[in-house]
Parts: sequence; structure tokens; C-alpha cells
Amino acid sequence: MAECITSRDNAKIKYACKLAQSAAFRNQEKSFLAEGLKLCPELAKGCPLKVIYYTERALAKSPELESLPGEHYLVQPHVAEKLAQVDSSQGVFAVFGMPEPGWETVASASAQKQGGARFLALERVQDPGNVGTLIRSAAAFGFDAVLLSDGCASPWSPKTLRSSMGAAARIPVLEVGSMAQAVQKLRDLGVLVLAAALYNSVELGAQPVQPGPGGLCTVIGSEGQGLSEETVRACSKAVRIPMSDRVESLNAGVAGSVLLWQFRGEC
Amino acid sequence: MAECITSRDNAKIKYACKLAQSAAFRNQEKSFLAEGLKLCPELAKGCPLKVIYYTERALAKSPELESLPGEHYLVQPHVAEKLAQVDSSQGVFAVFGMPEPGWETVASASAQKQGGARFLALERVQDPGNVGTLIRSAAAFGFDAVLLSDGCASPWSPKTLRSSMGAAARIPVLEVGSMAQAVQKLRDLGVLVLAAALYNSVELGAQPVQPGPGGLCTVIGSEGQGLSEETVRACSKAVRIPMSDRVESLNAGVAGSVLLWQFRGEC
Repeated sequence: MAECITSRDNAKIKYACKLAQSAAFRNQEKSFLAEGLKLCPELAKGCPLKVIYYTERALAKSPELESLPGEHYLVQPHVAEKLAQVDSSQGVFAVFGMPEPGWETVASASAQKQGGARFLALERVQDPGNVGTLIRSAAAFGFDAVLLSDGCASPWSPKTLRSSMGAAARIPVLEVGSMAQAVQKLRDLGVLVLAAALYNSVELGAQPVQPGPGGLCTVIGSEGQGLSEETVRACSKAVRIPMSDRVESLNAGVAGSVLLWQFRGEC
Repeated sequence: MAECITSRDNAKIKYACKLAQSAAFRNQEKSFLAEGLKLCPELAKGCPLKVIYYTERALAKSPELESLPGEHYLVQPHVAEKLAQVDSSQGVFAVFGMPEPGWETVASASAQKQGGARFLALERVQDPGNVGTLIRSAAAFGFDAVLLSDGCASPWSPKTLRSSMGAAARIPVLEVGSMAQAVQKLRDLGVLVLAAALYNSVELGAQPVQPGPGGLCTVIGSEGQGLSEETVRACSKAVRIPMSDRVESLNAGVAGSVLLWQFRGEC
């Protein structure tokens, strides 16, 4: 039987809460906290599970939790409440090690897939819901990696994890700093890099797009400002989604996902 | 100068709050409350504006509010707070008459566009964010109407209005009751009706789809359960979005929008 934590001031509980709250602390510890009866086992398929906490009630409902790796602790309901980031907590929480894929992941997909590699790059997409949705769509549509610039919502925050539904454990997610520089590195690998931009762009679907020998990357900018000029200039060309004049814009997660669908890889 | 409302107990304010909170009251009054400096003028392009409320601060920032139709009232900040449904209120609120398009809208688009009419139908999509996103995507991709079954989130709730960004004023939105019956009516108009369903379905994009003489309708089910069997049986055929095995599902707003993009109309 797992040890039971009865105090909200337990050091392990404080540590887990800090992981949920601070991106800087997550990066320092190379770890993150996730919550959810489905999400935690899902993430465990792709990320090292270090510690898992659950209430007796959650365990009664899902005895298979016991078979997960890592250290196990029962937590009393008032302790679970402290760990919970949402009102309707399911009473299951886990600390995972962060996967840290590097450029070699991108380079090897690019080299091996003979024009078939697919990448998604996000520049300063600040909404965790949009970042999570786009990671999930990229995984669904057979993409090989997601590149996030400075200023994007953290893929390991509780909100982003909820909207990606654990997909960040199933597709490499790289934090790359400057997007313009990352675009240049992709182009050096022979990747055709498409900026999503309203101006000086071709309509999506109007003509076939031929990926480069290293594959294809779609670059999407922030909800309010779109891509920086520097990044658009660094890209191979620009595309836009044709729209009626009845709306000003699409939801950012939707617009990005339509591009991902259009340029989907082999599933 | 508009009259200033200084009391949170003012009958007009109470009426507006009730519109925001109760779908039954909205249907009884055939009116809804919207909030937002951009959203209210946007909705005014397609819905009759009855009464608009704004703070002095909002008016100073956007003097063009004065040119909108309807009755105008200034409200003190503590009154605006009561009207506000979100923490960061912009201090602009308006009561609109609900547009009530009927089947004749669907029938005439279907008859006039010679196979080019496009419809979106939602069955029991409960999340206001998803309903709003899909109305917005349908308007963007040149669709002619959106049909909502019983059990869908109200298109006129504050949350749905925020995520549709006012698109419900630019595209007819019908509340149709039973979806299986609505599908039958569409088919009687010569519309090809496609169910979005995981089983017994063809892969989207695998083969060209020929709309019926009355056009094409995409039917999307609830986030958890998908479409009812009765509705799937009523449809002409079923399609699914091919996905990798790295995710279980797509975000509902995303999945629907990909279908809308694939079957887009003339913008």
C-alpha cells in the first residue's frame, strides 16, 4: 500500500504545486506536473513518470493506476485540492520528466523521410489552449516535430497539457528561441518553410505545393500580431487561408489545424 | 447626452443580466445580451440593436459607439461590473433582437446555388466554445447556414458569442430540434448529407465528394459521444478524418473546421 500524504504543507506537495505554477521552475527541474485520470497514464507512454499522487477514491475507480511506474502516494482529498488546477479535480496527479528532443530529431526526420517530413513551428502563440490544440493536431496529422519560439505558451503548463491531451508526449516538441533563426536552420536542411500570412501570400489550396527534399514546415504566428516580418522574410513563401468577408479571422487553433490538415504527413 | 444608470438594481440592468444567464428567458424575449467593444458593433451589422450600455471610459476610448442605433445609456463602473460576464470587462454591453431564420433560408440557398449550397449541422455539441468556433469557421468558409439540434450550446449565450466573434449575425443559425428529422428535410431538398463518424465511414480526402443538386451538409456530433445512430442512419454517407495513432481524437472545433474547409463553399 502506498504511503498516504495528509498535510498540504508536505514538501513533495509544495514542489509539485511549484512545477504547475512556474515555467522557470519546470525548466530548472526539467519536470512538470500533470493532472487527470486519462491524461497521466497517456503522458506516461512518452515521458518518464517520477511520482504519482492519487486519492483513495480515484484509485478505487481506476485500480490500474497502481501498475504505473514511479513513486506512488495516496493523498487525502484536501491535499488533492491543493494540487488541483481545475475545479473538478479527478484526484490523479503526476510529476514527469520533460522530454528534451534536440535539433537532431528534426534533422533525422528530415533526412530519412525523403521530402515526407512535416514540421509545425509556432511564433509567440501565447494562448495555452491554442498551443495545446496545435500540438494535438500536429500529432494527429502525422507531423514529425513541433518547434516553439520564445514567447509561446509553455507546452508543459497545466492548461496546455489539458488542451493537448497528452500529445506532447507523442510528438517531439522543441523550444527553439528565435523563430527566424530556426527557419533558416530548417531551410539549410532542405525544408520548404511556409509562413501563414495574410499579405503577399498565395491562397491555400489554389495550387499544389511541392515540399523540399527535407520536407515541409508550416509557421504560424501569434493570435493578435501574426508572424514577425523577420520570420516571414526568412520563410520560403507565404500562404493564407481564403475566407469570406463575413469574418475578420479564424480561431488560431483552427486556422493552424486547417494548414496542418492541408499539408498532412503520412499517418 | 445619454441618461446615466447609477444603480445595480435598475430594472433594465436586471433584465439584461437575466438575458445573459437564461436561455429560456432569451427565447421568451427573442433577445440576447452581448459584451465587448468590438463584438457589439460587429453584431449590430446583422442583428437589431435594441439597447446599448457603456461606461464613460469606454465612450471616451470609442466615441463611434454613439453612432450605433437603439436606446443608449451610460452606466457607472459598478453597474458595468454587474453586467460583465468576464473579469476584464470592456464596459460595452448591448441587447439585440435574435435573428430567427427559418427553413425557407435553407431551402432558398439550396435551390438557388445549383449544388453549391453548403450547410453545417451540429448535434448535441455542448461546449459553447466549440459551437462558437464552428459558427465562425462556417461563416469564414462560405457556408449558407448552421443548423443546431436540441442539446447544443445556445448560440446566443455570452460564451458562445465570444468564441463566434459575432459570426452568428453574419450567417443564418437555425435551432431545428431533432437532427435526424432535419437531416431528412435536407435530403428532401436534394442535399448530400455527410455524417462525421469514426466507423463505417470513408476517409476524408481519399476520394472526391460530389454534392447533391441541393448542395452539401456536414453533420457533427457531440464531443464525447459523436452522432446518434439515428442521425448517422438518416445521412447520405459518413466520413472520418484520417489520424495517426498518436492521438485518440481531435479537438471538436478543429475536427469540424477541417471538414468545413474540405467542403468549403464559394467565398
